[in-house]
This record gives sequence, C-alpha cells and structure tokens, in this order.
Amino acid sequence: MKDFEKNIRKVTPYVPGEQPQSRVVKLNTNENPYPPAPGVCRAMEDLGAHGDMLRLYPDPTSDKLVTALAQYYHVGKDQVFVGVGSDDVLSMCFLTFFNSPKPIFFPDITYSFYKVWADLYRIPYECKPLDENFRIVKEDYYGENGGVIFPNPNAPTSVYEELDFVEDIISHNQDVVVIVDEAYIDFAGKSALSLLEKYDNLIITQTFSKARSMAGMRIGYAIGSPLLIRYLNDAKYSFNSYTMTQASLKCGVEAVKDKEYFEETVNKIVETRKWAVREFSRLGFCFPKPSGNFIFVSHPDYDAKDIFQALRENGIYVRFWDSGRIRQYLRVTIGTREEMETLFAFLERFMRR
Amino acid sequence: MKDFEKNIRKVTPYVPGEQPQSRVVKLNTNENPYPPAPGVCRAMEDLGAHGDMLRLYPDPTSDKLVTALAQYYHVGKDQVFVGVGSDDVLSMCFLTFFNSPKPIFFPDITYSFYKVWADLYRIPYECKPLDENFRIVKEDYYGENGGVIFPNPNAPTSVYEELDFVEDIISHNQDVVVIVDEAYIDFAGKSALSLLEKYDNLIITQTFSKARSMAGMRIGYAIGSPLLIRYLNDAKYSFNSYTMTQASLKCGVEAVKDKEYFEETVNKIVETRKWAVREFSRLGFCFPKPSGNFIFVSHPDYDAKDIFQALRENGIYVRFWDSGRIRQYLRVTIGTREEMETLFAFLERFMRR
Repeated sequence: MKDFEKNIRKVTPYVPGEQPQSRVVKLNTNENPYPPAPGVCRAMEDLGAHGDMLRLYPDPTSDKLVTALAQYYHVGKDQVFVGVGSDDVLSMCFLTFFNSPKPIFFPDITYSFYKVWADLYRIPYECKPLDENFRIVKEDYYGENGGVIFPNPNAPTSVYEELDFVEDIISHNQDVVVIVDEAYIDFAGKSALSLLEKYDNLIITQTFSKARSMAGMRIGYAIGSPLLIRYLNDAKYSFNSYTMTQASLKCGVEAVKDKEYFEETVNKIVETRKWAVREFSRLGFCFPKPSGNFIFVSHPDYDAKDIFQALRENGIYVRFWDSGRIRQYLRVTIGTREEMETLFAFLERFMRR
Repeated sequence: MKDFEKNIRKVTPYVPGEQPQSRVVKLNTNENPYPPAPGVCRAMEDLGAHGDMLRLYPDPTSDKLVTALAQYYHVGKDQVFVGVGSDDVLSMCFLTFFNSPKPIFFPDITYSFYKVWADLYRIPYECKPLDENFRIVKEDYYGENGGVIFPNPNAPTSVYEELDFVEDIISHNQDVVVIVDEAYIDFAGKSALSLLEKYDNLIITQTFSKARSMAGMRIGYAIGSPLLIRYLNDAKYSFNSYTMTQASLKCGVEAVKDKEYFEETVNKIVETRKWAVREFSRLGFCFPKPSGNFIFVSHPDYDAKDIFQALRENGIYVRFWDSGRIRQYLRVTIGTREEMETLFAFLERFMRR
C-alpha cells in the first residue's frame, strides 16, 4: 500500500440492482412499468427547445417543486426538503439527525442502504430482527437509542404496518428523530403524514422513483417539522447547494400537478399485484401480504437462487440476495400485466420440467 | 432546545450566489452566457419525446458519459469519476481522501466550500495565505499535511499558475492526495492532466457548469489514477448509487461530442474578457490578471460594497463577499459583450456622479 493510500476512507459499497441495457423483462429494481405523466414529457421537450435555461444554476431552494409538494400534501413550504432521490434525502437525514453516541435502531431485514450510511458516517446501530412473518416487533424499539428508522411498507418484504403501529413506535421515541421511509406508501395504505401535527421529531421520506415513474430523474423528499427541515437544509447547503437539475425541478412540478394520472397508474399496479398474488399462490409460492409495487416470494420446492438464475438466463430480471434469512426469497417488481404473464409462463415451464 | 434536537449535527451552511428569477444582467455565479451545444438541446427534446426512459433508474456507472470523457481526455475509463456538479465530486473527494488526523492545506482566499466540507466531515485544515498579489506561495505547502487542494485558476481571484508551479506542489506532497480543482481551466492554460502519468496521488476535478454551459444539469468529474477513482466510486456507491439523472447523462455525452462548439464558445468568452480587462483598466479598476471566466476587481476610489449595491439596484448582479482581505473586491463573471457593455455604461455613470 502506498503512503497516500493509508488515510483514504475505505467503505464497502452498496451493490445496486443490475441495469441491463438490452431488452429484457426488468422486474428487479421496483421501477414503475408505466411512463411518467404526459406533462412531464412535455416539460422535458420544452426544456430542450429552450436550452438556454440549462446554462443557469438551478434555484438552490427548489422553490417551485417545494411549493408544489407543500400544496399537494397540505403542509407548509418550510416543512418540505427535496433531494436527488430518496437515497440523497435519507443519507442527509442520517448525517444530520443520527449524530448521537447511542445506537440507532432499524430492522435486520430492510433497505440495505441504512447499514451502508451508518458505516459511512460512523453511526453506531443495532438491527432489530423481524419476526418469523417478517413483521417489525414494535417493543424492540422502546429501548434507549440515538434514533429510529424503518420503511413502511418495508423492503424487500413489501409488508405494511397500520398507522397505530407506526405511531406506537414514534410515541415511544420522542427524544430522538424517527424517520419513516415511505418510498412505497402510495401502493399501500395510510401515510404517517397525519402524525406530523402531533410529533415534531418525525421525518417522512418519499420518492418520485416508484409511484411517479421518475426513477431516472432522481427526486426524493422529506416532510417534517420546520425545525428538522431547517437542519436538513443547512446540511444540504454545506454539501452541495445545487443538487437538483433544471430538468428534475421542472419535470417534478409537472408530475405533482397530474393527480389523476398518478392515481390511475397506481391503481393499475395495485390491480396487477392482486392478480399476481393469485398466480404466485397457484404456483405454490409463499409470501407475506404485499403492499408495495413488489412481492417477496419463496417456494418450498425450489431454491430461490436456481429460480433467479433460470429467470435471468431467460431475460427476466428479479432481485435476489444470497444472504442470511432471505436467501430463499426473490423480490419481484410488479410490472405490466404482459410482463407478469411472461414471468408466470416461464415459471410454469420451469416447474413442470 | 428539545431533547431530540441535542444530537442533530449543526453546521454553518455555504451561502450560494443569488439566483434572481427576473430578467437581470447576471454576472454573479460564473455561468456561461451562451447556451449549451445544439446537440445537448436536441438530446433533451428527444428524451421528452421518449419519456418512457425517465421511469428507469439511470446506469449507476454512468458508463456512456465516463466513456465519452475518457476518450476526450485520452485516459482510461477507470480513471474517470462523474458526479452531480464538481461540488458533489469535490465533496466526495474530501470524504474519501482527507481522512487523516493531520490538517489539509488550502489557500486562505479560495473556493469557500473547502472550509464547509472540512467542517462537515470534521477534517482538520490550515489555510495558507495568498501573497499580496493573490498568488499561492508554494513553499507553504511543503510541510507535513493530510492532503492538499487548490483551484487553478483560483477563485474568486481568477489567477492561474503555470504547470511547473503546480507540479512543484504535487512533487512535494507525494505521500498524500493532492486535488487540483480545474473548474475554470478551459479559459486559462495548460491542465495538470499531463502530470497524471507521473503522479498517482493526483486528482483533477473539472465541471460542465462553466465552459460547457450546463450549470443547470449538474455534471462534474474527477480524473486520476485507477486506484483513487476506485476509492471514490466505493464512497459514491455508499452514498447514493444513482446520482446522475437520465437527462444529465444523455446531455452530457452530447456536450463532450461537440468540440467545435465548445472551443468557439470558450474563445468568445476569452475575447470578451480581453476587452473587459481594457475597459476595467480604463475606469481605474485594479485586478490580478484574470484566467477564468471572471475577473476580480477593486477600485481605489470606491468601496466595493457601494458599487455592488448600486449595480444590484440597477439589475446588474455581481458577487461580493463582505469579509477580510477581499472586502474591497467584486467578482464579475464575463457575460456576453452586450451584458458587459451594460455593466461598463452603468459604471461610467456611477463614477461620473
């Protein structure tokens, strides 16, 4: 090792799902199978036609997008923070809010980035095991800690917890910041947004990557008390004042405006999920009740790894983690009805062999 | 202070230059006065017309953009790292490379974000004063340190140092990582890129925000040895795997392709700068020889603050820092010839009063 290498920060990076560039059935990264709202595409064309905008730095306050989100969710503009996907938002939250010597708590099976950020920022943490049905055990979160974070619905399990359950965890942790990561909430049930009036230590994060079909434009946001949002903005301005591209800001506003298209798209995915649940059952798969745009399946007679590889060889990509308690599971994104039919047709052939 | 507030990380954020939304002469944030290359605008329109792309996560390796840059600069693909503007790239460099208990060194008058990142990541630092002509004193960088960073040309001074000067600092610091921040190099002189073969502890950062007219699309990059670039990517993947939007990746490639437009635009700005130098001299301003797309001016008979405010009231925005040794200076971005004429016409009226 060279001298200059000694003081380099060494981290084990998160490995994202594959982004195959050829034409495949891509059910591996929980993207939305439908295009973004028509207004989003028009905004992009318009930006190209008036390219002079691109030479200017974006508004560092992201005012128009923040305003659109505040109006949509009926909160104050000072309660909204936007970032480069919810990964950026969550990472900023870890850096800003989890600055205690006590460990933060999150589930053992959850979004794998939590561990990566904790390591990166040297935040102590304790993972609380989900129960045998992949449910969060709320009592595990009652002990003294430096903060709490969990997704609802959880990933990769797709399990949703009701609002009173979420509130119970928050109410037992009013001396720290609690983050509810609602990346998939639009496919699930009630958001914790209604709890904001009661708990000013609560941060809710959401994203444009799933229900709003805009993973490619990297937009996420946090909603919380003006106090917490101010701290988050201070951290962001210390990091990179201009994080959002002109294109993301402009397109983001258009996406928020088109509530009808948003609801229609979400409904289509929820319908396909209902049908997929029946198909997976028919083929003998087991899974917790799914509430996201994905389903976490296991089969008693087949190794998940074998199914994963067979699917992959046939151009169908799903997500598989070769580790611990989830080794026998596959996370399958809900695609279009046609994509799912391709998947089930293959699975039938595979299992009949 | 509430309990949950105690463990929040408190930082003093960087204050970016204003982004006035109305029509003004905007010479305050070193943007390029010319639009991006025609291919960039066409790429954006195309993306709008094929909006389905936007629902997909971008390629986390930014392969096409990395390839385009590697070809342009005649380096390996494993020597290029891209990020959300050079702010993101530099911030990642601070986090990754400046992980020593020894202080890092940078000039006292320089890009103000260096101090902010050092504070954010708890990196010890020492500022080395520029001399009375705003030149870096290279001997100041010979002592033991945890890393070195300086911009060339420097900001906000616009002063460029020749390649042998840059090499002298690098050669005295081969046991740490040295970062040369070349945000403005295209308007100046020789890049330190030719030193990469000799020094594998060298990182060079550049941006699309200035010479390539794409501040709004947030693209920056670092070029260095494969070893350093790998560490940088590990840190990036630990932070946010998908930082670049589909739009930035696609438009970025088009910008790199059009070398002719790039050179034409840079030449126009350099020509306007030459003329602006004569005009500022004629009006009695003092300034170090400018090498960026901006000029750092002071007037013996007028307070910089008064000129700044008078300009602002007349819709002409320049940059002013009310602090220390640079209190009597204004940083003026080189705009179009017409914008500069508006500036000089106002200054003449102002000084004739």
